[in-house]
Amino acid sequence: EIVQAITTHFEELDAPKPLAGKRALVTSGPTVEPIDPVRYIANRSSGKQGHAIAEALRRLGAEVTLVTGPTRLPDPPGCTVRPIETAREMLAACESALPADIAVCAAAVADWRVAGESDRKLKKDGGGPPSLALTENPDILATLSQTGPGRPALVVGFAAETGNVVDYATAKRARKGCDWIVANDVSPGTTTFGGADNTVHLIRADGAEDWPTMGKDAVAARLAEAIARHFNPPSPPAPQETIP
Amino acid sequence: EIVQAITTHFEELDAPKPLAGKRALVTSGPTVEPIDPVRYIANRSSGKQGHAIAEALRRLGAEVTLVTGPTRLPDPPGCTVRPIETAREMLAACESALPADIAVCAAAVADWRVAGESDRKLKKDGGGPPSLALTENPDILATLSQTGPGRPALVVGFAAETGNVVDYATAKRARKGCDWIVANDVSPGTTTFGGADNTVHLIRADGAEDWPTMGKDAVAARLAEAIARHFNPPSPPAPQETIP
Repeated sequence: EIVQAITTHFEELDAPKPLAGKRALVTSGPTVEPIDPVRYIANRSSGKQGHAIAEALRRLGAEVTLVTGPTRLPDPPGCTVRPIETAREMLAACESALPADIAVCAAAVADWRVAGESDRKLKKDGGGPPSLALTENPDILATLSQTGPGRPALVVGFAAETGNVVDYATAKRARKGCDWIVANDVSPGTTTFGGADNTVHLIRADGAEDWPTMGKDAVAARLAEAIARHFNPPSPPAPQETIP
Repeated sequence: EIVQAITTHFEELDAPKPLAGKRALVTSGPTVEPIDPVRYIANRSSGKQGHAIAEALRRLGAEVTLVTGPTRLPDPPGCTVRPIETAREMLAACESALPADIAVCAAAVADWRVAGESDRKLKKDGGGPPSLALTENPDILATLSQTGPGRPALVVGFAAETGNVVDYATAKRARKGCDWIVANDVSPGTTTFGGADNTVHLIRADGAEDWPTMGKDAVAARLAEAIARHFNPPSPPAPQETIP
């Protein structure tokens, strides 16, 4: 294990750092929205994809802040980690991590929270079950995508959909104002939530690219490379000297 | 670590087994109630107290089945572990673990689940946030406490309350029909949820016993000893021969 760590360390010293000098903000994991001191609403995000992206961007030289809900994952090495619980806390942590060149919103942020969280445990008092009134959470992806001097140059969102994945994700890209969307299928039967693999589509202005099923680490590495290419486009071929 | 394991093993061989031959059912952890394929309602139970009780009962010789929601804990050694997610699954697993002499319901079972769980992800469609209609879950403690030939001889429930802990727990004991209630305070500010310590009150037919704050392992050991004494009451003093 130590040999592995040293080997990795020296491989990394040798690796190209196309994102050196870039600041990246990555969100990961679920958010947890309290109902009362005991109960909460959450979602099945494991944080594996977001954490892997933070690590992949750092490996390419970026300075990474990871804003994450509760997960079972170790902190990715070399990243600044900001743990949060609610969507409102995540937005505040993201805003305080700006300015950034790159924002990758991989967290599964709760769309809604409970209106009027109770500071006492709700009782089963015989009056029948309560109805939970929900209220909309801040939209972190849309907020980070707003045009303005502080907007990261590249904002990447995620879409977790059950069915019509590319259509929904393409619409989401336009609606949120982000640059790219990584879309994946989380239908029951797929093991995307909590599993090691992911099947994604990268939606950009010029259309959708279907990626084969691969490990979440491989998705992260490929996304980080696409981001590096975005900031360092291959030079156009040098103009040929024409021989008269 | 190996020496420790061997030492523990031999200590256990020597330890008295007052619950040998008794079957115990213990529930632990949260339940997780799906809203849709992505979202769920859960609660902050870590499972530490329930798992510790399963282990303490086994140490006193009981044959233990542990029915548990998702936790980060290792399976307690020597127990039969039945993992579940929802309250309905927990009830079914408990019923199939009967007959038992002892039932300790330490799980934080969701009182309610969402009526009409969606098999597609709920969309934020601009129509405003949905309202979640809830419906009552089966009451596992009350079900196990019902009189009948299959009722465990000793049914112990837990009460997690914020304020008026002993009063609420005493009322709960009567309402559920269980024999004992272990009541604890989970107000914000206490670290009962997720923490290592617990401050409990043991409510029996003859009143409430306040226990000092101690580790969840110590609470478990003391509860297991109380259960062992219940099944093996100290013999009354032998009648003195009167010398005429």
